[in-house]
Amino acid sequence: MKGSAIPPYNSNHNLDIARIMHRAQLSVNMPYNYTRTIRLADTDAAGIVFFANYLALCHEAYEAALAAAGIPLQDFIVTGDVLVPISRSTAEYKRPLHCGDLVSIKVSPTKISENSFAIDFEINRITPPVKIAAIIRTEHVSTSRSKRERVPLSPKLAAWVSAG
Amino acid sequence: MKGSAIPPYNSNHNLDIARIMHRAQLSVNMPYNYTRTIRLADTDAAGIVFFANYLALCHEAYEAALAAAGIPLQDFIVTGDVLVPISRSTAEYKRPLHCGDLVSIKVSPTKISENSFAIDFEINRITPPVKIAAIIRTEHVSTSRSKRERVPLSPKLAAWVSAG
Amino acid sequence: MKGSAIPPYNSNHNLDIARIMHRAQLSVNMPYNYTRTIRLADTDAAGIVFFANYLALCHEAYEAALAAAGIPLQDFIVTGDVLVPISRSTAEYKRPLHCGDLVSIKVSPTKISENSFAIDFEINRITPPVKIAAIIRTEHVSTSRSKRERVPLSPKLAAWVSAG
Amino acid sequence: MKGSAIPPYNSNHNLDIARIMHRAQLSVNMPYNYTRTIRLADTDAAGIVFFANYLALCHEAYEAALAAAGIPLQDFIVTGDVLVPISRSTAEYKRPLHCGDLVSIKVSPTKISENSFAIDFEINRITPPVKIAAIIRTEHVSTSRSKRERVPLSPKLAAWVSAG
Repeated sequence: MKGSAIPPYNSNHNLDIARIMHRAQLSVNMPYNYTRTIRLADTDAAGIVFFANYLALCHEAYEAALAAAGIPLQDFIVTGDVLVPISRSTAEYKRPLHCGDLVSIKVSPTKISENSFAIDFEINRITPPVKIAAIIRTEHVSTSRSKRERVPLSPKLAAWVSAG
Repeated sequence: MKGSAIPPYNSNHNLDIARIMHRAQLSVNMPYNYTRTIRLADTDAAGIVFFANYLALCHEAYEAALAAAGIPLQDFIVTGDVLVPISRSTAEYKRPLHCGDLVSIKVSPTKISENSFAIDFEINRITPPVKIAAIIRTEHVSTSRSKRERVPLSPKLAAWVSAG
Repeated sequence: MKGSAIPPYNSNHNLDIARIMHRAQLSVNMPYNYTRTIRLADTDAAGIVFFANYLALCHEAYEAALAAAGIPLQDFIVTGDVLVPISRSTAEYKRPLHCGDLVSIKVSPTKISENSFAIDFEINRITPPVKIAAIIRTEHVSTSRSKRERVPLSPKLAAWVSAG
Repeated sequence: MKGSAIPPYNSNHNLDIARIMHRAQLSVNMPYNYTRTIRLADTDAAGIVFFANYLALCHEAYEAALAAAGIPLQDFIVTGDVLVPISRSTAEYKRPLHCGDLVSIKVSPTKISENSFAIDFEINRITPPVKIAAIIRTEHVSTSRSKRERVPLSPKLAAWVSAG
């Protein structure tokens, strides 16, 4: 076996890597999953995550999903004429989350119109026992700063929404 | 000057105070109004208040309304067995808010059941021109920590909800 | 003056108002005092205000002091070429603060150089018993966005610092 | 194959794994590095991370470092009699951070006394070009809730501080 870096029979190992990469690939295209540990700053004196911070967690997941798709949020904010502000949110808080809990947030966009889309978020606590913690939905409207009116989603963003 | 509660030669001044106090009194009982200046920490890099912070603003207004009614929120959190967590929120974001804007938040509670109530919040920017900035609704469920089940609202809280 | 609820010489009352207004006037010029109730969102699962939020509280007080002096912070941020970022902060956390506590924050600016100044903040809990809660100092440097270098404080800001 | 620590027939692969594990091991014991993407909620209307949020970022890194060492922060907060509040912080803000920036935070604890320790944090922006963004130091005091006095660090925490 001289000179061989990786022996031929080492198949399981390579297969595992292939599986992991395949799964990682899927997680970019299909409902994106964002994983995050709850930190002290997320919580309040009731000992649990402050209700408004569930929405902030979802926005983090949205930013991560966009970045994974090559559409960094900061492009909307700093340079562009087109903003995509949130026009509406709904949240069902199902279970409290505590400092140290690991959560997974599933990000599923859907088209509403040429100018707007919704995102359905499902926050699951994956620190055992696994439990759904919240169901959140946000609606986003593509808006031109200069024209002060609704404009169609950019092709990239429209593609991300369709792939969701 | 018989029967006159307020003397003629100082009438405007005292009348104004009476009106202000009367209005202040009403504002405790009737839809409570909370006034607040938007601060830098409320905003994000898009230059406006971060969407989740609209909900935090409403919670501040709720805490102020409870305190004005003699029901400090910290009583629920620290000492009591009964918590009143938020089970649901909806928000319509109608206009952006900027650092330095003065906002008024109207707090209107409504009974849902023996164990639960909703609060309707209306955030108005009162820095001219006055404009509605958001409509938010939260639902709250009275829950016993020890029994792990829904329990009726405390008499004080029920009274506050009814007065809303 | 029979039946008169408020006597004609209403001196004490008016004097009180004069005193309050005088004091309010002074509070704009002299060490400015900002008053604020601690809210649930300021706290964390340890039941007290999260350490980083003491600095956010001080920034609120700084914004209020500037606004009272006719120098709204948003002028720096949105329109101007000159920013005044914080280059340094130190904080001594002396006592915990809880949800519902009323605090007063004294804001005392001092000149460091033509281009920079410091602000000393003293946070006192004024919910009895009155206790000092924190001593915080921030340093601010006047910077030109276009020149990417330090520039002298604007005359208005320099005047506010000198009056501190 | 005398003297060979790692067998010939899979040498590179195993060596890589050994190196990675060794490095991972070190990263737990030696200055811990926490990596994080800056999110919209970290920023303010000046377009950059709000100064107080640099301290919140460091606390996240501290929590991650403790968790990696098997000392979850929530143990202090919820169940224990011993709290380790922050008594002092200093921060030098060297460069602005923007939404989307990747940062690495180095966490280096040092013993001050039997009852207290400091942590030196170095925040580096690792989105090229790599630049130091802030130098922050916090001081922590081990305190008994029931005795209301300073107490020695727990053996686990003392070991983590010594390993720093």
